[in-house]
Amino acid sequence: MTEDLDVRGGGWLSPEQLDGARESLPIVYVDAVPVRVDYAGVITHVGLLLRARPDGSISRAVVSGRVLFRERIRDALLRHLEKDLGPMALPRIPAAPAPFTVAEYFPDASVTGFHDPRQHAVSLAYVVPIDGDVEVSGSALDLAWVTPEEATGPDVVVEMTGGQDRLVRLALAACGRLP
Amino acid sequence: MTEDLDVRGGGWLSPEQLDGARESLPIVYVDAVPVRVDYAGVITHVGLLLRARPDGSISRAVVSGRVLFRERIRDALLRHLEKDLGPMALPRIPAAPAPFTVAEYFPDASVTGFHDPRQHAVSLAYVVPIDGDVEVSGSALDLAWVTPEEATGPDVVVEMTGGQDRLVRLALAACGRLP
Amino acid sequence: MTEDLDVRGGGWLSPEQLDGARESLPIVYVDAVPVRVDYAGVITHVGLLLRARPDGSISRAVVSGRVLFRERIRDALLRHLEKDLGPMALPRIPAAPAPFTVAEYFPDASVTGFHDPRQHAVSLAYVVPIDGDVEVSGSALDLAWVTPEEATGPDVVVEMTGGQDRLVRLALAACGRLP
Amino acid sequence: MTEDLDVRGGGWLSPEQLDGARESLPIVYVDAVPVRVDYAGVITHVGLLLRARPDGSISRAVVSGRVLFRERIRDALLRHLEKDLGPMALPRIPAAPAPFTVAEYFPDASVTGFHDPRQHAVSLAYVVPIDGDVEVSGSALDLAWVTPEEATGPDVVVEMTGGQDRLVRLALAACGRLP
Repeated sequence: MTEDLDVRGGGWLSPEQLDGARESLPIVYVDAVPVRVDYAGVITHVGLLLRARPDGSISRAVVSGRVLFRERIRDALLRHLEKDLGPMALPRIPAAPAPFTVAEYFPDASVTGFHDPRQHAVSLAYVVPIDGDVEVSGSALDLAWVTPEEATGPDVVVEMTGGQDRLVRLALAACGRLP
Repeated sequence: MTEDLDVRGGGWLSPEQLDGARESLPIVYVDAVPVRVDYAGVITHVGLLLRARPDGSISRAVVSGRVLFRERIRDALLRHLEKDLGPMALPRIPAAPAPFTVAEYFPDASVTGFHDPRQHAVSLAYVVPIDGDVEVSGSALDLAWVTPEEATGPDVVVEMTGGQDRLVRLALAACGRLP
Repeated sequence: MTEDLDVRGGGWLSPEQLDGARESLPIVYVDAVPVRVDYAGVITHVGLLLRARPDGSISRAVVSGRVLFRERIRDALLRHLEKDLGPMALPRIPAAPAPFTVAEYFPDASVTGFHDPRQHAVSLAYVVPIDGDVEVSGSALDLAWVTPEEATGPDVVVEMTGGQDRLVRLALAACGRLP
Repeated sequence: MTEDLDVRGGGWLSPEQLDGARESLPIVYVDAVPVRVDYAGVITHVGLLLRARPDGSISRAVVSGRVLFRERIRDALLRHLEKDLGPMALPRIPAAPAPFTVAEYFPDASVTGFHDPRQHAVSLAYVVPIDGDVEVSGSALDLAWVTPEEATGPDVVVEMTGGQDRLVRLALAACGRLP
C-alpha cells in the first residue's frame, strides 16, 4: 500500500500519534482496483500502478490508502483515486457500499495472506471502472492497463507485494473475469 | 413486467410454444432499476416507467423483460434498457454478474411476494446507473425520476404491482439508500 | 452500540489513548444481526438485545463492538456474539468476508444516518444465523426474537437508536425478507 | 452438469417437450459448491462429486441441476443437494437469495467460458456449508473433500468440465479462500 501523507491538523492525529495508534488499533483502508469495461460492463483491462523500488526493480499495486477521521468511504475512494490517477480519470464509485471483499492486512503475513509490516489495516476493496484519462502523479511512474490474463499471470504477480496479486484475482473473480 | 414481443423465428419458440413453455418451465428474466447517482456514487433518484392502465389509472414499473435463447444476461439488460429508455440513455451495466437479489415471480402471489399471473419467472435484478438522456418508447408514457424517499412512499407504492415496489426497496437497501 | 470494555494491556491502547484515538481516527467495528432461519434458509426471526435505559425505558440493539488490534473480523464477530448471547448460541459466521453493508457511524447524525456521538466507527455488518441456545449476559436484559414484520414495525423502530433500525431493514432486504 | 431426470407429469413438460424448450429457451439451473467450514466460517474443504466416465476416467463436479416449474430456488438447492449427498448432509442454504455468481452455460463454449452442449442454462451459484454426513447416491461414486489448494490445482482442474473448475475458483474467491 502507498504511504499515506494525508494526516493533517485539526482533530486528526499527528504523525507521531498515528504511529502510536498504528501499533495498537486496526486502521481503516480502502483498496480500489481500477478497470476498463466495455459497453456491456465486461472488464477488458485492469490498471496497475508502477513504482520504482530502491533496487531499481518495478513494483505494481492497486490504488490504496487510509480513510480519514470523519471521511466517508466514498470520499476516501475519490481522494485516493484522484491522488494516484489525476483529476480527469472520472472514476465510477459504486452505488452499493458493500465491498467485494475485505482484505485484512496483518503485520504477520501468515494470518490472512494479506501483509503490511507497518500496521493492522482493515481494507474495504472495490472495483472502480475508470472512464476518463489517467495522469499518474505522486510516487507512481505510470499506470499500466493489462488484460485479466496478464494481471493474473506470473510476470505481473511477481511484481506485487502484500497479497495485492491475490486481491486482483478476487476482484476479477467477483466480476466473473478470473481466467 | 412488460409484455415481451421479442420472440422471433430461427431456433426460438413460436408465441404458441412460448405460451406452452410458460406453463411448465421457469422463464429467465432480468429486472433493471434505473438510477441517477452523484459524483460519489450515491443514488439521488430512481427511474420508474409510467404506463396507462385500461381504466385510466397510472402504473409504475422498473425495466424488465425476458432473456432470449443464446443471449447473455448483459445483452438482455442492454436490450430492455434501450427498448424502454431509448438509445441515448447510456446505461452502466454492472461489471459483476451477481444480481443484488433474485426475484422469483410466481403465478401464486403467496409464495415469495413477487407475482406474475402468466408465468413462473426467475428474475435477476440489477441497479443500473443511467448517465445519458432518456426518451421513453414502446408502451411507456414517461420515465419519472423520484427520490428514494418518494420511491418508497405510499403514493408511489400503490401504483406498482407484482411486488415491484418491494424490488425497489431491496435495490435501495443494497445501495444503503433505504430511508 | 455497546460500550467496549475489551481494551487491555500488551500492545493495545490504554483507555485514555483509545479516547484520544477515537477523536481522530475511524474505529473498526462489526455489527452482527442475529437471525433464526428455517430448513431452507429463510429468516423467520431477528434477535434484538434489550437493555434498560437510565429513564427506565427499553432500548433494542443488534450485536456490535470494536475489532481489536491483530484480531480477525471473524474472531471479533465470534467474541461479541459470545459476549452478548452466551457460549451456547452456536453462531454461523459467514464464509464470505464481504459484509452485506458498511454502516458508517458519524458523530454528526446527518452524514450517513448512522450516528455515534462518541466516535467515527466504520462497521462491517453481517447477518448471523444462530442455531443454539441464547443466554444473554453483560448489560443486556434479554434477547427478543421478533418476526421481520415486527422488526420493521413502528413499535420496535422507536426503541432503536443510532440508525440500527435501518441496519435491520438493510439486513432483511439483503436476505429478501424486507416486508 | 448432471442429467436431470426430475421432469414429471402434471403441468410440466414431457421429456420431448423439454428437449424442444432446451433448444429455444434458457433453462434455469442452480450450482451448489459444497464446503466444510471451521468454527469461524473459514472454508477448509470443497466437496467434489466423482463420477466414472465411459472411458473409465474420473470426472469431478459440483452439485448442479434444473429448477422446476413453481419450485423456489431454495427448494431446488435442497432437492439437488439431497439427491447427490443423501438425506443426512444437513446443507446450510444461504439466507440471502443473491448468488455469488451467475454461470451462463452456452452451447458455444467461447461466449462465457461456461459450456453445456445440450442447452443454454442460466445457473445461480451458491456456496453451501455441509454440516452432516454425506452418502452419495445416484450417479456419483463418491464425494471427495479437497482443500482449496487442491481444488484449484492442476490435478483436479483437468478432471472438471464445462467451466466448473472456474466456478470453484470463483466460489473460493467470493469466500476469500482463493490461493
